[in-house]
Amino acid sequence: MTPIQENRVFTYRLDLAYEGTDFRGFARQPEVRTVQGDLEKALSVALREEVLTTCAGRTDAGVHARRQVVSMTLSRQIDDEGAVIRSLNRLLPPDVRVHRLSPAGKGWSARFAATWRAYRYHVRTEPLADPMHRRLVWHVGVPLDIDAMNKAAALLVGTHDFASFCRAAQGRSSVREVREAQWRAEKAGHLTFEVLASSFCQQMVRSMVGWCVEVGRGRRDASETPGVLAARDRQAAGPVAPPQGLILWEVGYGESREGRPGVE
Amino acid sequence: MTPIQENRVFTYRLDLAYEGTDFRGFARQPEVRTVQGDLEKALSVALREEVLTTCAGRTDAGVHARRQVVSMTLSRQIDDEGAVIRSLNRLLPPDVRVHRLSPAGKGWSARFAATWRAYRYHVRTEPLADPMHRRLVWHVGVPLDIDAMNKAAALLVGTHDFASFCRAAQGRSSVREVREAQWRAEKAGHLTFEVLASSFCQQMVRSMVGWCVEVGRGRRDASETPGVLAARDRQAAGPVAPPQGLILWEVGYGESREGRPGVE
Repeated sequence: MTPIQENRVFTYRLDLAYEGTDFRGFARQPEVRTVQGDLEKALSVALREEVLTTCAGRTDAGVHARRQVVSMTLSRQIDDEGAVIRSLNRLLPPDVRVHRLSPAGKGWSARFAATWRAYRYHVRTEPLADPMHRRLVWHVGVPLDIDAMNKAAALLVGTHDFASFCRAAQGRSSVREVREAQWRAEKAGHLTFEVLASSFCQQMVRSMVGWCVEVGRGRRDASETPGVLAARDRQAAGPVAPPQGLILWEVGYGESREGRPGVE
Repeated sequence: MTPIQENRVFTYRLDLAYEGTDFRGFARQPEVRTVQGDLEKALSVALREEVLTTCAGRTDAGVHARRQVVSMTLSRQIDDEGAVIRSLNRLLPPDVRVHRLSPAGKGWSARFAATWRAYRYHVRTEPLADPMHRRLVWHVGVPLDIDAMNKAAALLVGTHDFASFCRAAQGRSSVREVREAQWRAEKAGHLTFEVLASSFCQQMVRSMVGWCVEVGRGRRDASETPGVLAARDRQAAGPVAPPQGLILWEVGYGESREGRPGVE
């Protein structure tokens, strides 16, 4: 969380996409390459003032974003947003692209104003890996029972304590409202998980995917899902899915599900 | 072309996929990383004899393959093809995967037995680049007139001298038979070119794509296509499309178009 900085009265929203492979996650950290670190460096050069950003969804190392949203406060107004976008995209490495820059209401926060986040996760079930998409897909390599996985996913929809599906955060609630969770088989040998929630705790999507894949392999049964939730124990949900299959797909600000723009 | 080596009486077919980004093309060259170089090194270790391969389609630097086919002759029979595939995939870097290994008739050549090759080329027309797929797509970034592009593509179908669409090869014919060439808009902001021919000369698909994109931008007219073919001059077809959008999709061995396996 970034505090509003003194004397900074112009708030902006910035939308960006990135491939997470070569980043140690979104959140800035000393000495390692992060999306926020690269973005804030480029912003500071392009806008000629030090800029701190707040994001809608802190993605972990190796996780991608089709649409991440950040907010920032500036001491000056931007005259030409298009010129700043072009300048940022020249300054940024090719694995991060800024797609939009727009003024926001004073004090607006990409994090606190967000009403929902949608993620997707890609799984390949073909026995052999696809070298062209290896950075964007978890190669499970065995057939999965999608009907069983959808039964498990449906049992995760609703307001639950997701402690079994989260990396524990001391003193923070792990209660979340999952509004949609569904597996789709759009092409042969490939499954996509689409999940939408008010917000997610850390590693929650990857834990849900890990659990569904255990069910899809037949190692566990979908009917065990309520018991896994009730256990509030990270071991109960089985192994966490790897990061490369996960994409922050979209962030909602008050729009209804139907009204979501740009959904493919 | 690899000559059949003395005392090598067992012929095999090997199918593989690769991401071409970090290779200087398929064909082996001293001192640089190539797919054939990496593959032959792995084969020599796995099979404990020096192996030379012949491929169906020599892809250029940066071009990918969903399904490349190679042939090779060995001095011994392989007992367990599955074990060799697993061993090769352990030895190979993650940007190359072997998908199939099977015995072939004596003297069979992946190059000379092939009756057709199919390629795909991906173009992004959205103004902003997609960092997640940047290694697999040409980001044109402007809207393109797909109907005009399909008119140009249709005029390239048939048996023609493709000298205007090829990197000149001294003393070799540039006459080729293009059987299918079509642009599709499968999702918003993305166009795919699908082309199938008996064989292709060097940079032919990328030249065809370059020409179609000139037409799609409105800089040239589809009706000029026969004149460009007749010119037999590389300058006539305009700029060659970059390699990263191109994928060797499939190679045919006598099967009819309808009978093609595994077409997505």
